[in-house]
Amino acid sequence: MGLDMTRAFNFSAGPAAIPTEVLERAQKELLNWNGYGCSVMELGHRTPDFQGILDKTEANLRKLLKIPDTYKVLFMHGGASHQFSMVPMNFLAPEETANYLEMDHWSRMCIKEAQRFGNIHLQQGIRTNSEGLMELVPENEWQLDEKGKYLHFTSNETIVGVQFQEDPHTFSGKLVSDMCSDILSRPIDIEKYALIYAGAQKNIGPSGMTVVIVREDLFESFHTERVPSLFQYPYVSEKGSMPNTPPSFGIYFAGMVFEWLLENGGVEQMYKRNLEKAHLLYDYVDQSNFYHSPVAKGSRSFMNVAIQMKDRTHEERFLHEARENHLIALKGHKTFGGLRASIYNAMSLDGVKSLIRFMEQFERNVT
Amino acid sequence: MGLDMTRAFNFSAGPAAIPTEVLERAQKELLNWNGYGCSVMELGHRTPDFQGILDKTEANLRKLLKIPDTYKVLFMHGGASHQFSMVPMNFLAPEETANYLEMDHWSRMCIKEAQRFGNIHLQQGIRTNSEGLMELVPENEWQLDEKGKYLHFTSNETIVGVQFQEDPHTFSGKLVSDMCSDILSRPIDIEKYALIYAGAQKNIGPSGMTVVIVREDLFESFHTERVPSLFQYPYVSEKGSMPNTPPSFGIYFAGMVFEWLLENGGVEQMYKRNLEKAHLLYDYVDQSNFYHSPVAKGSRSFMNVAIQMKDRTHEERFLHEARENHLIALKGHKTFGGLRASIYNAMSLDGVKSLIRFMEQFERNVT
Repeated sequence: MGLDMTRAFNFSAGPAAIPTEVLERAQKELLNWNGYGCSVMELGHRTPDFQGILDKTEANLRKLLKIPDTYKVLFMHGGASHQFSMVPMNFLAPEETANYLEMDHWSRMCIKEAQRFGNIHLQQGIRTNSEGLMELVPENEWQLDEKGKYLHFTSNETIVGVQFQEDPHTFSGKLVSDMCSDILSRPIDIEKYALIYAGAQKNIGPSGMTVVIVREDLFESFHTERVPSLFQYPYVSEKGSMPNTPPSFGIYFAGMVFEWLLENGGVEQMYKRNLEKAHLLYDYVDQSNFYHSPVAKGSRSFMNVAIQMKDRTHEERFLHEARENHLIALKGHKTFGGLRASIYNAMSLDGVKSLIRFMEQFERNVT
Repeated sequence: MGLDMTRAFNFSAGPAAIPTEVLERAQKELLNWNGYGCSVMELGHRTPDFQGILDKTEANLRKLLKIPDTYKVLFMHGGASHQFSMVPMNFLAPEETANYLEMDHWSRMCIKEAQRFGNIHLQQGIRTNSEGLMELVPENEWQLDEKGKYLHFTSNETIVGVQFQEDPHTFSGKLVSDMCSDILSRPIDIEKYALIYAGAQKNIGPSGMTVVIVREDLFESFHTERVPSLFQYPYVSEKGSMPNTPPSFGIYFAGMVFEWLLENGGVEQMYKRNLEKAHLLYDYVDQSNFYHSPVAKGSRSFMNVAIQMKDRTHEERFLHEARENHLIALKGHKTFGGLRASIYNAMSLDGVKSLIRFMEQFERNVT
């Protein structure tokens, strides 16, 4: 790893690393896509050329996640926070109730938004256990409103680094999931869900675009009173994700990332590699007396690995020296502190091994 | 213009041409921005590095348009169509009335959306004159509701190619303007406006981002009932355009375009060049017996030049041969037909001259 290295290992939680091969392709095509003499970002969205990009992008996502025909796939403007409002605006009347699992900062934002539009039944999803470690509240302890219109939960929580190891299965109603930070990192049984959404900037592409997978029969009972057209799922669906000019460059990037995934064995292969990366890192941290994981086994995320040093005064130096070693964006979220290695699909096994080597070296240097 | 030319002259109405110099810079930085070892699209938005990009982008826009300190500049997710809802949701109570100038397809979409949230007083803005040409309805013929909360109008209409030659001045209330297709093409007297918005994909950068310039004192009287947080101007402003992950790559692109504008003499110089380009093209069309303009003098857009051939059966061949000559996206909007040359800031004088040469040659070939 000499100083001439142009690409660092980027552990950013989001916007996050894009596969280098995808960026290289984008770079090559940036001034002249497919011989058209312009970039995709300069291409009218009503051209057959752009429609072709959109169609292929959707088809590849359907292939990757085995999305049944009874589900619509939407590519929408904005981020997950837009969905925080859209879900209740579409599916919750003011007098109705929905269940929300409360996790961290982001789910609290989501809940605050939902409370604007209906009654929210809260269930704590995360807690500190007797050893002071973060853990998921086991599903058999949940107390939900079984008559609630849906249960909303975040499958992977990026700040603390906590992730559901299996789909929730006790609630008999509709499941809605914010899968921003683990979509495409593992196989999903889509049919267990009514609606899944994911902002692009972790496992899909640049920020400003969100993928929504929604069961079509939900469109039969939705609300439109004081709901902007662009926030109405059925309308966006009817217009084929193009009620207005879509975030076309983001869709093109997503399409390239989906092709990269298919070329690399799809989500099954990605899942295997993601588990390998995470186990390597957690195993190293667990055997260390210098680093530790703040998350209990059984609740740990394989996408966002929170790491703490027993002596927190080393953090600044760690981040500085890591950067000098081309390992960037390892700082934990400001609300939780410590270190965090986000190891989404685009992070290679080599990247994780480099991080571990650096952690070993850092420990030797400061102790 | 040999076949080895990699960049075509792109007359797309939007997403539209980006200056080649900007794309070249983006291309160079795409895998490694500023020596950070990653792309801007892979950079956390809470890093000082991205904050620096955002701050500089805003400062340069303020410089270009001489935006007073009493106005907030927001970089928002989505397109102008999001603003179609946001404006009435923020500024119009259900029992209140606002004036909307009805132009074409887009303004009708805008009006339809506004009608969801308040009473809309319509004024026709465009009409066919006695010679069968499109023209703006003169301002002294408008009948507005003087008590209306605001007057909304589109400064430049892209489909027909009609543009206000001066700011409306008879309405005593607040002016709100959709300037998607002529922002940064000419100097604007910002203080005449309460709010200006512009989707990025014509004169600013890739689609998926919208610039809003809003007078801060408007925040004193806005509505939040059933308005998503991300649709509340004061909230987005308070959070410095980052209530959530912003469309960071779009903001970076906008920043590069603004720098390009400053390096090229700012909007004053751009305006001069835009008028020169437009006059050249209109003068050529006016003297022709083969082509004509469907728009009356005095109402013509210098951004979108609609052109019709007396014999419309030539259109397909024209578009095909133009493309072979590296002149792309000259097809008119489906609702209006004919040809259309969108000559935004990124279109060079050379591009317009090439188009005219091709038009002459085409006329010779078919007649």
